Amino acid sequence: MALPPPEDMKESTTETRWNRRFEQAANTLQPTLHRWTRLPQRLVEFETGCDQYFGVSPRTSNHSISDLPSLNWTKDGELVLDFGIHMVGYLSFHLNFTGANMDAPCRLQLTFGESPFDVTMDMNNVNTWLSTSWLPDEVINIDICPTTVSLPRRYSFRYLKIRVIDASPKYQIRFSEIRCDCVSAVSQDTLVESFQYTDPALQAIDHVSISTLRDCMQSVFEDGPRRDRRLWIGDLRLQALTSYSTFRDYTLVKRCLYLFAAVSRVDGSLPGCVFVQPTLSPSTDYILDYDMLFGAIVLDYVSASHDTDTGHDLYPTVLGSLNRALAHLDPDTHTFNPSHSTDWKFLDWDSRLDRTAGEHGVLLYALNATNKLATLLQKPQPHAQLAAQLTAAAACFLAPECVFISGPDSQVSYASAAWLVLAEAFPPETARRALLNTLSHRDAIKPLTPYLWHHVCDALAQVGCYKECVDLVTRYWGGMVEAGADTFWECFDAEDAKASPYGDVRNNSFCHAWSCTPSYLLRGKLREFVGAKRIGDVRMAEWDELWIRRSMMDECT
Amino acid sequence: MALPPPEDMKESTTETRWNRRFEQAANTLQPTLHRWTRLPQRLVEFETGCDQYFGVSPRTSNHSISDLPSLNWTKDGELVLDFGIHMVGYLSFHLNFTGANMDAPCRLQLTFGESPFDVTMDMNNVNTWLSTSWLPDEVINIDICPTTVSLPRRYSFRYLKIRVIDASPKYQIRFSEIRCDCVSAVSQDTLVESFQYTDPALQAIDHVSISTLRDCMQSVFEDGPRRDRRLWIGDLRLQALTSYSTFRDYTLVKRCLYLFAAVSRVDGSLPGCVFVQPTLSPSTDYILDYDMLFGAIVLDYVSASHDTDTGHDLYPTVLGSLNRALAHLDPDTHTFNPSHSTDWKFLDWDSRLDRTAGEHGVLLYALNATNKLATLLQKPQPHAQLAAQLTAAAACFLAPECVFISGPDSQVSYASAAWLVLAEAFPPETARRALLNTLSHRDAIKPLTPYLWHHVCDALAQVGCYKECVDLVTRYWGGMVEAGADTFWECFDAEDAKASPYGDVRNNSFCHAWSCTPSYLLRGKLREFVGAKRIGDVRMAEWDELWIRRSMMDECT
Repeated sequence: MALPPPEDMKESTTETRWNRRFEQAANTLQPTLHRWTRLPQRLVEFETGCDQYFGVSPRTSNHSISDLPSLNWTKDGELVLDFGIHMVGYLSFHLNFTGANMDAPCRLQLTFGESPFDVTMDMNNVNTWLSTSWLPDEVINIDICPTTVSLPRRYSFRYLKIRVIDASPKYQIRFSEIRCDCVSAVSQDTLVESFQYTDPALQAIDHVSISTLRDCMQSVFEDGPRRDRRLWIGDLRLQALTSYSTFRDYTLVKRCLYLFAAVSRVDGSLPGCVFVQPTLSPSTDYILDYDMLFGAIVLDYVSASHDTDTGHDLYPTVLGSLNRALAHLDPDTHTFNPSHSTDWKFLDWDSRLDRTAGEHGVLLYALNATNKLATLLQKPQPHAQLAAQLTAAAACFLAPECVFISGPDSQVSYASAAWLVLAEAFPPETARRALLNTLSHRDAIKPLTPYLWHHVCDALAQVGCYKECVDLVTRYWGGMVEAGADTFWECFDAEDAKASPYGDVRNNSFCHAWSCTPSYLLRGKLREFVGAKRIGDVRMAEWDELWIRRSMMDECT
Repeated sequence: MALPPPEDMKESTTETRWNRRFEQAANTLQPTLHRWTRLPQRLVEFETGCDQYFGVSPRTSNHSISDLPSLNWTKDGELVLDFGIHMVGYLSFHLNFTGANMDAPCRLQLTFGESPFDVTMDMNNVNTWLSTSWLPDEVINIDICPTTVSLPRRYSFRYLKIRVIDASPKYQIRFSEIRCDCVSAVSQDTLVESFQYTDPALQAIDHVSISTLRDCMQSVFEDGPRRDRRLWIGDLRLQALTSYSTFRDYTLVKRCLYLFAAVSRVDGSLPGCVFVQPTLSPSTDYILDYDMLFGAIVLDYVSASHDTDTGHDLYPTVLGSLNRALAHLDPDTHTFNPSHSTDWKFLDWDSRLDRTAGEHGVLLYALNATNKLATLLQKPQPHAQLAAQLTAAAACFLAPECVFISGPDSQVSYASAAWLVLAEAFPPETARRALLNTLSHRDAIKPLTPYLWHHVCDALAQVGCYKECVDLVTRYWGGMVEAGADTFWECFDAEDAKASPYGDVRNNSFCHAWSCTPSYLLRGKLREFVGAKRIGDVRMAEWDELWIRRSMMDECT
């Protein structure tokens, strides 16, 4: 998730109704951030023109990584280090010189690459409506060597490009002890349940999902450790679901739920995201569908953790988080009326999308979740009647030819279909047929983001279309793995490596929480279908080593 | 002093004959580096097109400096702070934000301006044969505010330009507590003898000389605190002389003498400069005339400090430092033969210069100094006969029309004249006439650097041409003051503000030791002539305040 472009920005600055008890509860749940060291595996060069997704591929350099401390670098010298796996952490290295004297400072540009583009395109003239301050490069000046350079900021990267902007003909510089102090709420000793898949593509997809989730798990579930590094409701829901099948870190989910609940607003609504630094503060970004989904996260949490106390504690927040959406209901038709407000209705980045049916689906999904939560907490269902009304009203979104439609132009879209299916607005067989018809409809608007692709997959699995679901996972997430992903990306267009919702691919995030869901599907609804065999627990350290070994073989040949 | 261009570089890598006792002696003489805080005095804007040297002049902004903490800055925002006086030190500031949330990092470019050019020209496409790593800008990225930013490097500046490269529309940044922790071996409590001059121009010149010297006095006498930040023999000699009339820091001079003596080479010669970080090490730059002048520095030191023990201790080094120059003497004519070696003979940056007469002058000057030192130490004069021979031989550098000449084309230059006069190669009246004739000769090659301009002035004063000397000081150093100098520059061309020996003015140093000599002249040989009246001692803190008050009135009107 990222901010929308300023011109489209629909902000709601409804006043916050601080709940300091909830804030305190969230504070006591701060995770331990674990640290471990990762060293560069090899020096690489990038070959262009080979038939790969990015058009450039890493190739092991002629210089062995063990030679690095004896290699000399001068003005315009450039090296790219490959750490073999995506990491989040702190870089340090030792810098020394050889030659007569260090008679001028040394100016270096360091570029932290999540993708080959980051380290092969320069960082000039980036045309993006997001801030260029997100770009992953630093320029540093060193006066005296030998010295240890420890950069204070946290970076998210697999590749490190170092360019010597200038030095002096009188000396050459040498790099050694380059290391990343990796950081995550998930330690290297954490055990993760391991599955064996018959299809090696699924094996890799499961692996990359877990790496993605781990790298996003910091003091909160971040959306992306490079950008935006913060907690969004929509991303949290998918991370929490995936965590229940992998790390089972209930505490971090609980902390995040309390963070949102601490900053609910006077109308009961919740901000789209929260900031935890410098102190807890709600964003001014408000997303109606994110707001509605808070109750579903609480339901999933209580179901997975059996922590009904928290369910009770947050129940009023859950009820309040529906208020704003409920005001969008047409009192006569019981359908969602998008023009009731200018509130930002997301579902996906596509601006063409008619969001009526989709938001209706999200609302019904949320009402059902709230009712289920009430049952779990042994309370009366607060919205049983309303859910029934919305279920009935959803009929208007099903065209006679059994496709899902939305809005005055009867727009066909994956977004409408996914959410109406997930909302269980139709009998399973109808839902299944309408979903498949919609997905194969030639005019259907397809998803732009993994966020919506996930909901399409989840809908397919829900109606038993396992094969279609697996095919989609294999094609979409598998496509990223094929392209070289160690972690799943914020966006992926198989046809255009440079596509970006932000105007320039250099501001994309290549480790993004809302893409981590294949493990949730593969280890959950798809588990039997794909024949996943539980083969014991694996330490994360081993898990990472496996991937690094794989990466080292991943050459452009 | 700076390195010559690589293509002209004449290096001598004669082996060092380490003297660890001398090194130890130098180490025990490490000065205390004093610190004090200086705050920005005002926000400025630069007006172009006004009739001033740089073509741009600072004008006090409409915003008072006391408003700064409440001013908001966003993308592309730019502010220039004027600290009112040149400083060497460490910058820190407090950064905060206002607005919704700091939803993206903040990327700032900081440019440390010694001159208006530094903060009005950008730092792109600098075409210089010196390293661009000397350029005075930094790019920093800040993730979380509020924070205190403390830059680890030492800077040399009066102006600080801050440009917000990018931030986010969601917040504005605010700067407060901007400060420079100034540093020098000269504290703010140091008393400096103060003189009153009838001519206010001389008053200012004396002031700026002292500020220059102070800012160059760090753990050694640096040539320039921005660039190159190191100890050159030629600069040291002039700094030591000026110090004897001002701060009288004999210890720092002694330390520097021992540093050179510690790294004398197997043939007795001394490197052109030494590095003290990371550890003491000689440069590979060798300058023949600098080498020869070591004895003169020791003589001046012993004369000023009466520390004859050090004179005795360094006497063998003094003798050795003449070896290489003496090998250049023609055994028959007793004149200096420049083609004896490819050793770098400096005198000045001008490549057209025939250096025969000038180097002959330097050598004779050095022999005389050595002989005087011997007398002071109650030793027999080692080079009495040789000095007499060189004095007699110098006749060949005096043309019948009583101008100084050099080389096969009888080149007339200020360099030849200055050094032959300082060497006392001719009777005073002859020297006086020949000097004046040379300086007014239409083909005479004039100095490029303050280093040579100083020797011209010193020669004029030596032969009693006080008026000519004062006129020159007033015109040349006064020209820099008129142009806005707080400290004297590495080079000054009254006709071309962008002139640079390094290809681009942005790599010039605007606080450079070899320019600090007017105080030596005004308080010494010129003292009576200019009617300087001693008016007691002034603390450096007050001295600086005086200058800051003056700077604040220095507007482009």
